[in-house]
Amino acid sequence: MPTLYLEDFKPGQTFTFPGSHTFTREEILAFARQYDPQPFHLDEEAGKRSIYGGLIASGWQTVGVTFRLAVEGLIGNVASMGSPGVDEVRWLKPVRPGDTITASMEVLELRPSRSKPDRGLVRVRYAATNQRGETVLTMVGMGLFARRPGGGGATP
Amino acid sequence: MPTLYLEDFKPGQTFTFPGSHTFTREEILAFARQYDPQPFHLDEEAGKRSIYGGLIASGWQTVGVTFRLAVEGLIGNVASMGSPGVDEVRWLKPVRPGDTITASMEVLELRPSRSKPDRGLVRVRYAATNQRGETVLTMVGMGLFARRPGGGGATP
Repeated sequence: MPTLYLEDFKPGQTFTFPGSHTFTREEILAFARQYDPQPFHLDEEAGKRSIYGGLIASGWQTVGVTFRLAVEGLIGNVASMGSPGVDEVRWLKPVRPGDTITASMEVLELRPSRSKPDRGLVRVRYAATNQRGETVLTMVGMGLFARRPGGGGATP
Repeated sequence: MPTLYLEDFKPGQTFTFPGSHTFTREEILAFARQYDPQPFHLDEEAGKRSIYGGLIASGWQTVGVTFRLAVEGLIGNVASMGSPGVDEVRWLKPVRPGDTITASMEVLELRPSRSKPDRGLVRVRYAATNQRGETVLTMVGMGLFARRPGGGGATP
């Protein structure tokens, strides 16, 4: 895949990433021990006693898996100059052991930088969906994408 | 530590969590392979060629470490009923191997639920700071906290 620049994106574009990920009990526990040691992420019995009715993955792990699918499916090919942040992370449904997640991205907005003509800010909405077609996560990401060197693309 | 309920929090309260975390090269690479396989998170040489000038941790790993410090320092003792999401994740400075992070939380707002009298929504701002006193991450989290059973606390 060729390197993608700011000029290759426009609002309304949607990308469905080709990969998927099935959550295992073991990786849910491993992530929770390091990054989110709440009982319902660490222990099946504690999960049963919680409002979730069983072990669920940390919402941050769902974010991480979604982001890996995005990097492997698209973002890894973008001439990226980093990300200032993310807005509106929403955990809509729990993710449980055995659940399989796919992800997609919609381009919301392109904003060429006024102070730095070699780049622009891109706002995108990511969504992750489970094997039942339920959206489990949405988030609005921001990325600084380089413009194509020497021009050659349409001005966004 | 006793269980904390909605009534135990008020806007303006600040908590500095007791723990800290020093990022190792190995854990930066391990996280990146699973959740954020961009070259500057995976490889020292690729980091040197990037805008970051060296290997940096995934911003999502910084979020995870900050959240673990919050769970261990406070949130693990809250009668939590889950989180609908997070807003305004901002990565302000890169985190590199050897950097040590501490974290704090400020209560922004309490909103008792109208439809479910047993809980309320709490908005908090987390901040993570490195060993040079630089803020590396801020984010605004939302949590559903249970009210104290049987009352007994001030109405927020």
